[in-house]
Amino acid sequence: MAERNLQVLLAARPKGAPQDGDFRLAEAPVPEPGPGEMLLRTIYLSLDPYMRLRMNETSHLPPFEIGKPLLGATASVVVKSNLPDYRAGDFVAALTGWTTYALSNGKGLFGRPLAKLDPARGPLSAQIWILGSPGLTAYKGLLAVAQPKEGETVVVSGAAGAVGSLVGQIAGMKGCRVVGIAGGPQKCGYVTGTLGFDAAVDYKAGDLRAALTAACPKGIDIYYENVGGAVFEAVLPLLNNFARVPVCGNVAEYNAVERRIGPDRVPDLMLAILGHRLTLRGFVVSDFMNDMQDFSRDMGAWLAAGKIRYREDIADGLENAPRAFQRMLRADNFGKPIVRVSPDPAA
Amino acid sequence: MAERNLQVLLAARPKGAPQDGDFRLAEAPVPEPGPGEMLLRTIYLSLDPYMRLRMNETSHLPPFEIGKPLLGATASVVVKSNLPDYRAGDFVAALTGWTTYALSNGKGLFGRPLAKLDPARGPLSAQIWILGSPGLTAYKGLLAVAQPKEGETVVVSGAAGAVGSLVGQIAGMKGCRVVGIAGGPQKCGYVTGTLGFDAAVDYKAGDLRAALTAACPKGIDIYYENVGGAVFEAVLPLLNNFARVPVCGNVAEYNAVERRIGPDRVPDLMLAILGHRLTLRGFVVSDFMNDMQDFSRDMGAWLAAGKIRYREDIADGLENAPRAFQRMLRADNFGKPIVRVSPDPAA
Repeated sequence: MAERNLQVLLAARPKGAPQDGDFRLAEAPVPEPGPGEMLLRTIYLSLDPYMRLRMNETSHLPPFEIGKPLLGATASVVVKSNLPDYRAGDFVAALTGWTTYALSNGKGLFGRPLAKLDPARGPLSAQIWILGSPGLTAYKGLLAVAQPKEGETVVVSGAAGAVGSLVGQIAGMKGCRVVGIAGGPQKCGYVTGTLGFDAAVDYKAGDLRAALTAACPKGIDIYYENVGGAVFEAVLPLLNNFARVPVCGNVAEYNAVERRIGPDRVPDLMLAILGHRLTLRGFVVSDFMNDMQDFSRDMGAWLAAGKIRYREDIADGLENAPRAFQRMLRADNFGKPIVRVSPDPAA
Repeated sequence: MAERNLQVLLAARPKGAPQDGDFRLAEAPVPEPGPGEMLLRTIYLSLDPYMRLRMNETSHLPPFEIGKPLLGATASVVVKSNLPDYRAGDFVAALTGWTTYALSNGKGLFGRPLAKLDPARGPLSAQIWILGSPGLTAYKGLLAVAQPKEGETVVVSGAAGAVGSLVGQIAGMKGCRVVGIAGGPQKCGYVTGTLGFDAAVDYKAGDLRAALTAACPKGIDIYYENVGGAVFEAVLPLLNNFARVPVCGNVAEYNAVERRIGPDRVPDLMLAILGHRLTLRGFVVSDFMNDMQDFSRDMGAWLAAGKIRYREDIADGLENAPRAFQRMLRADNFGKPIVRVSPDPAA
């Protein structure tokens, strides 16, 4: 095949925020599928914060390997197939990552067959995250881990982000008061105006604690933790008795090289957990793979019914993925970061 | 009445570890019960770590008042009664605290009638803690909050203490591997020899982390948190995926005036919660008052069947209560701290 197979490799493990030099563009031959394999072309690549964590050697998820393409969720099209269940032209949700072409044996996470994407259900780009891992993360982290009750106050950090925007919209459907934390007036306007949250608090506007207090007159029953750091510190004193904190991400810490000098706030946190009978519970989306069917049914129906609003921040070309990824880690994206790796035949 | 009514008042809110001057011995008249009241004489007073927290103005439980007797659980005898349900000579579990005599309207926590103590069920001193709040704390904190499964490894801090000793024995009955953390060889010998834990780790012996690792070859599934501080830090890296941490107490922090200078370990803790899908959950015994009946049935049966071993550290005379309390906060007690305030007619 004469096509170029552009890839982005992990060149070095970043110290702190990833730099251009931590990535390397490379060209590989377009591989030829053997028996039991198919060749996929990536259309969309989803950029997600967990990827930063997997760049660290100490990641709790398997670390990315130096010199190999970074991994990630994609919407791909089957180019050639030696698998009976997939035909050329089929769209699939794959995990082949930062590469234009890749071979697949048709299996995804936990050996499950790769799901086919039906363009009739919505744009391919949206399907890989709203009906994929970020969607499942939002759905189970809120409904199963935090168990919201009607009338409770739910605060979501990263509210304009992929997971946060979905968490808030689901909480709203469950009858909760929903307060989003986001950076800057544009994102805050989007959170209340487009996503329909009850209030938005701008963490860049100063005195986050006072703004949160004003937005949460009855305190906070659920804090969906996406970011950690100073936002969590501001939320902690407002948590009500029996509040639940699903710990989904700690973006503020993913880049961390050294710990803040002090003081050590663990004792305060433990006393708050004790005094207010808080529940902090960490989870990863793969814990909930068995709930995929319930999730697909509910979220698919909400999406089809127009109950889920969303926005994407699409970068064109895989060569622009490293910069788009760095922007996301600085929270300079506005909308779900997606890379259009090759033309979308369904668009 | 010519009897002296010795009391211990809170003289000042302690800064750090309580000093003798934070307490004041006083004598008050023995009060005369009016209509709907009875006069109680304290036989045993239970000394418990939560009392230190209530000496702080910022306590999540109602702070003790300066110039008033400190409160606490007691085994008392009815001296005179104008209440139809209580007669002179009855033994009751009361909350009248650090005083020899006190009036009662017959109501305890949440307006419930004071429970009568039957000397046939065991020593009065043991009944107020094993069948009282420390017992309920151990029972619900382990069984309801942590939900142990057979074969799991349960680590208990404060293992020779009132709550910890009960937690470990219940966990053992549920088929768990039980590891106790205690201070010094004498307490550790008691934990394995008398209480029957599978292993004991001496936190004073140095390299707690290595000793814990050796005692927990399969990691830790449940850490019953009684103490906080350095012990929690040593436990954290050994927690297995999906481990549960019922947060019952943070004795190491109750005396704290200033935070340790640093580094701030909250980010590490949050990343551990996320990476290992930990659940940290705080609870207070009063959350479980509705489960008192189940608890009394089970614990009463275990106690009667000789399945619960225990040891008490009894101080004689209310005037010795402040020193016994200070000893407990230094963990220099060996056994549940109890003050014998006046002679026990049932002994």
